[in-house]
Amino acid sequence: MNALDDMIESLSRLPGVGKKSASRIAHYLLKSDRSVCERLAHDMTTMHDRIHPCKICGSYTEDETCPVCASPGRDRTLLCIVEQPQDVQTIEAVHEFNGLFHVLGGVIAPLEGIGPDQLRLSELIARIQEGEIREVILATNPTVEGDTTALYIQRILKNLNVCVTRLASGLPVGGDLEYADRLTLARSFRGRCSF
Amino acid sequence: MNALDDMIESLSRLPGVGKKSASRIAHYLLKSDRSVCERLAHDMTTMHDRIHPCKICGSYTEDETCPVCASPGRDRTLLCIVEQPQDVQTIEAVHEFNGLFHVLGGVIAPLEGIGPDQLRLSELIARIQEGEIREVILATNPTVEGDTTALYIQRILKNLNVCVTRLASGLPVGGDLEYADRLTLARSFRGRCSF
Repeated sequence: MNALDDMIESLSRLPGVGKKSASRIAHYLLKSDRSVCERLAHDMTTMHDRIHPCKICGSYTEDETCPVCASPGRDRTLLCIVEQPQDVQTIEAVHEFNGLFHVLGGVIAPLEGIGPDQLRLSELIARIQEGEIREVILATNPTVEGDTTALYIQRILKNLNVCVTRLASGLPVGGDLEYADRLTLARSFRGRCSF
Repeated sequence: MNALDDMIESLSRLPGVGKKSASRIAHYLLKSDRSVCERLAHDMTTMHDRIHPCKICGSYTEDETCPVCASPGRDRTLLCIVEQPQDVQTIEAVHEFNGLFHVLGGVIAPLEGIGPDQLRLSELIARIQEGEIREVILATNPTVEGDTTALYIQRILKNLNVCVTRLASGLPVGGDLEYADRLTLARSFRGRCSF
């Protein structure tokens, strides 16, 4: 049963896929038509050729620039800084933000050997120095690394004449005080706003 | 973003993978090395060629017969009947059963248009008629379809001089009476055994 075990092993390395789900997927693929596997395999082998980072913002695109950067309808004075390309998709799905994006490609994480040099920070500074951007919204995750990175970026942008803001952090909508963790609750106090 | 959306769409058709997991996997694959994708794609395209049903029991194998059917150490008087090939793996992982298997390839499900003719029942009867098997353990799932199929098989095996048994159904180990559903609790009463 080596081919099947190999398949399960490969699948279980994917994020969010455990041994049981991997086995379920492998059996599903074996039971389904050969063309299902071939289509998936084709998509997997070609995705690296078709998709590459947008040369402006760093999120994924199949063209030279991504649809957001290319769109004439976006507010070019607003720049939202995110960690990963998938964060762009997440924010776009909310339809709340109409500015542009800048993907860092990670966060400062000394333990994993990722310093500011590995992030797309010189590109960020260059974009801001063009002068059109008025506000930079730091949308890194509210984690230790995300907060550290936000703080670092806020410092390096200090003399660049842009307003730097950070996404609000606090209780999630529909949440319950009773089940909120201490750090979140503390932060929701510190970030309280007039009603 | 068509290639990425296509990939997410294809991945989200896999069992147990929703839109969010599919997006996570797609981004993981894009971020990881090209060889990860190629390996997975290779496994997917070759699995149908390498893996096929065992000609005796119907579970998956790369050889003519599966390791269980080929093993000289198995009890050839005991036959466990399961719905799907993956059930063989599940039961093998428990190390409780040392007999042989017979995979039906499904269950009787009139609503899905699956009747007894689509299951490997003639092969089952042929195996039993060889005369070596003394007990047939019906290990179809304790669902409406699984129970119906078990009942059907029990009937067609009536005159074949084998003992037909069914896996016990009742409270799961570590479970709590309070949280057991009514059908399971009722069944655990009906199937009670002397202590």
